[in-house]
Amino acid sequence: MAHKFEQPQEHSPLPLFTASVSAMIQLERSNGVPLYRQIYERLRNAILGGELPEGTRLPTERALARELHVNRTTVMNAYNELASEGLIEGHVGRGTLVKRTYLARELDDEPFEQHMPSWLFSLSAEEELALGHDARLMSEITALGDQQEVISLAAATPAAGLLPAELLREIVQDDLLTARQSALGYCPVEGLQSLRRGIAERMRKHGVPVDFQHILVLSGSTQGIGLVGRFLLHPGDEVVVEVPTYLGAIQTFRALGARVIGVPIDNEGMRLDLLEAILARRSPRLIYTLPTFQNPTGVIMSPARRRRLLALARRYQVPILEDDPYGEIYFEGEAPQPLKALDTRGDVLYLSTYSKLLAPGLRVAWLAAPEPLIERLSLHKQIFDLNTTALGQWLVSEILQRQMLDPHLARVRQQYQRQRDVMFQAIQEYWPAGTRVTLPRGGFHLWCRLPGDMRARTLLREAAQEGVAFVLGEPFHIDGGGRQYIRLSYAVSDEVQIREGIRRIGLAMRRIQSRRSPRDEQEGLHIERMPMV
Amino acid sequence: MAHKFEQPQEHSPLPLFTASVSAMIQLERSNGVPLYRQIYERLRNAILGGELPEGTRLPTERALARELHVNRTTVMNAYNELASEGLIEGHVGRGTLVKRTYLARELDDEPFEQHMPSWLFSLSAEEELALGHDARLMSEITALGDQQEVISLAAATPAAGLLPAELLREIVQDDLLTARQSALGYCPVEGLQSLRRGIAERMRKHGVPVDFQHILVLSGSTQGIGLVGRFLLHPGDEVVVEVPTYLGAIQTFRALGARVIGVPIDNEGMRLDLLEAILARRSPRLIYTLPTFQNPTGVIMSPARRRRLLALARRYQVPILEDDPYGEIYFEGEAPQPLKALDTRGDVLYLSTYSKLLAPGLRVAWLAAPEPLIERLSLHKQIFDLNTTALGQWLVSEILQRQMLDPHLARVRQQYQRQRDVMFQAIQEYWPAGTRVTLPRGGFHLWCRLPGDMRARTLLREAAQEGVAFVLGEPFHIDGGGRQYIRLSYAVSDEVQIREGIRRIGLAMRRIQSRRSPRDEQEGLHIERMPMV
Repeated sequence: MAHKFEQPQEHSPLPLFTASVSAMIQLERSNGVPLYRQIYERLRNAILGGELPEGTRLPTERALARELHVNRTTVMNAYNELASEGLIEGHVGRGTLVKRTYLARELDDEPFEQHMPSWLFSLSAEEELALGHDARLMSEITALGDQQEVISLAAATPAAGLLPAELLREIVQDDLLTARQSALGYCPVEGLQSLRRGIAERMRKHGVPVDFQHILVLSGSTQGIGLVGRFLLHPGDEVVVEVPTYLGAIQTFRALGARVIGVPIDNEGMRLDLLEAILARRSPRLIYTLPTFQNPTGVIMSPARRRRLLALARRYQVPILEDDPYGEIYFEGEAPQPLKALDTRGDVLYLSTYSKLLAPGLRVAWLAAPEPLIERLSLHKQIFDLNTTALGQWLVSEILQRQMLDPHLARVRQQYQRQRDVMFQAIQEYWPAGTRVTLPRGGFHLWCRLPGDMRARTLLREAAQEGVAFVLGEPFHIDGGGRQYIRLSYAVSDEVQIREGIRRIGLAMRRIQSRRSPRDEQEGLHIERMPMV
Repeated sequence: MAHKFEQPQEHSPLPLFTASVSAMIQLERSNGVPLYRQIYERLRNAILGGELPEGTRLPTERALARELHVNRTTVMNAYNELASEGLIEGHVGRGTLVKRTYLARELDDEPFEQHMPSWLFSLSAEEELALGHDARLMSEITALGDQQEVISLAAATPAAGLLPAELLREIVQDDLLTARQSALGYCPVEGLQSLRRGIAERMRKHGVPVDFQHILVLSGSTQGIGLVGRFLLHPGDEVVVEVPTYLGAIQTFRALGARVIGVPIDNEGMRLDLLEAILARRSPRLIYTLPTFQNPTGVIMSPARRRRLLALARRYQVPILEDDPYGEIYFEGEAPQPLKALDTRGDVLYLSTYSKLLAPGLRVAWLAAPEPLIERLSLHKQIFDLNTTALGQWLVSEILQRQMLDPHLARVRQQYQRQRDVMFQAIQEYWPAGTRVTLPRGGFHLWCRLPGDMRARTLLREAAQEGVAFVLGEPFHIDGGGRQYIRLSYAVSDEVQIREGIRRIGLAMRRIQSRRSPRDEQEGLHIERMPMV
């Protein structure tokens, strides 16, 4: 765990007196809970509960150890745990400070707008918030800069032209009146029977032996992460994720009070040597992975790793949540099989969605899992949203039954591949040397490391002036890493916009470089199929 | 708090040795927490966590007091708290037993089917589960009895013929292609701007001065109860509800770990004298009320009570969650104004839905609340389902903009009023004397007290043989009450089915009565506009 260093920021409140920190810790020396753990837990609660707000300076390890009459190592272990969860951070010249966290932001009494402009917050802190707030975001960016059109390379959403409006209109026209009860009434919490059957049939074609009773229809994948998390994790439980990973999953796990442990990813997927070390030492309750066209890196986990991951899950009896929104958006050869196709024992809970394949507005996703789990999760789902929209489910079910999905996907894959190529070529053409980018074989994203020591946040501000938006790399990390990374989506804009967007970002990059000292090195542009994190 | 008495049931597991209960309680006499509270909390955790499963016999107050070296009053206070939360119950000849709770059912390792048939569970424990599982439920009831058609008087859902399929088809036909981005893409977590404006405009017509920024679009009202609950309540916090009340709210509050306190309802709504006594003695964090066509009783809270409720909320600084799914389904005079129309300070959070007015399958509901709360709740919503279906939102928004809602509601009100009258007349015709029923001026339900000492559960079993379904009164209560009450929906079936369903229930009632001792009194049929609870 390396502490990160950065300049003090204007918006931090005054540090509290550090003396108050030791006063809030009452150690129980005979209750069997290790002292470092007691310190960690007390501080963690104080941070999440707002008692220790953002910017509070913690005592040095030595000072706190003295005041609590414990070894310095004890405090160090507690601080390390807090830092690994992103709750505290070391700053040159300022000591160890409490970091602003997502959860703290919710609990805090001051609206975040007082700290930074909301559009910037939208861009940086939440990918999906950025998507959700697209309209507001766009208008604010536009108001900021010139009056030119704003181009989004941020949203992981299908291009408007690829939303299947024609197919849906045809289905409504033909059959809504006769299907009114199933399309417009309440439906079973597990989902429309016809849709569950259609999904199971399609999964069997991809090598996963499931039937309708293994399928729970969801109102989006995020709901699936929340349900599985709520069911398997208690506050304080550990969950393993890839670093970087889908930031919505990080947020959801943290909102549930779980401790998120990161395992770096390389060109073959999650680093299983590191995962095994964690499994051997700790007791995570869940492993969350995106094995196919990983978000944000685009990596596909290799077949050998997939088999070994399953073996590890079995040996240590930890379930795997496989999140697979992009598996059907592949650009070469055959459809990649889900990890779940190799799972003979029900260790893998498989999550996917029609948001990327058809339309996010339908709000239809699903979980495939052992039947008893589906039954339990249905009870949880019912409490929180009763059931997923029947209309969306009925429409997807009709698309499957009418064999409309495969022709649609053939068209979609072709167009995204073209857009990926246009983006990649534009980067080669317009961006300064020293940038490193991935060339993914599927999915929606390029993952880029900025040249030299350029910060993604600096570039985002500069690019906003040019009227172009993308997503910062940092929120995909759990440890404050990723500050030089950005994620670009080639899905949502057309080819002309993509070229223009990349050109504008290139302008912004050169403007930043021109303000820097000339000693900045100019490396060549690295092109990699896989990311380097 | 009165203990309830009933016969032992076959499916209860063997009681544990009561000695183990006192052994699990370690009292801390110097930590400032009252002893009764420590006992209460330890037992509550043990019950919810499954350590003390359903049917466990607790020691008598006297025995436990002796073993723990505390006053008997201390144990009595702890037991009373547990009983008021529905966690324990007194049984003649068996002592005090742990009750099966919803939460315990989730945590339990045995599927509930081992204890009672699933269709019966569906009918009795959850209204909305009953709705959700309608198909399964119906097929199971049918398999049970003869082959006759099953009639549902259970579901609080619009009749198929009143689902606005024609309107929706027309809108899709006209405009889906041009509106594809807003209808099929991601949308802001707060909701489509056009819909938020349309909802606010309609609320202003009903006397509530709100604008779009006060509206959060939701995926069903249940989601709103969950979001508000998650935001305002911490585990152990108290929430006040009417008794009886919408059972989905009880479930959701309990699932969040809140303690649900009941205030009985009379002909003018919630008993505010009792509410005030609670507010003066305890510190509930939320008051949940259905002031207009209350579910299940149909009561409208009187204008005087509404004003006084607001004054109490202000004085004790407790927010009110007003749930108003049925306000626009009125049968006499003008549309009743929401409680929120009287709220000048933002103490009322207002929840409503298009599930009853248009179609549940659209999955569109909303919350109207002060703007800062909308912002906070949006962050919570985003974590758990990102946003509500854009397609459903767009369709509702179009219905509002095209002025289609009022003509649709005019038709809907007329038909429901006719169906209410048919049901009421059939009850007078077919049911034995001694039944008491409400005649509500709006909404979807009749609330009935069965004659003599007839149990609703007995009637449900008997009626299932006749192929007719309704909802038990018990789950609408938090205290084990309501065992002689049933809720009938006149919304979902047509006039012929309603008459036939009531006739069949009448047959079942007479069959039950004919098996009873002749000393059962036969009172006259009571007809009341308002319920007696």
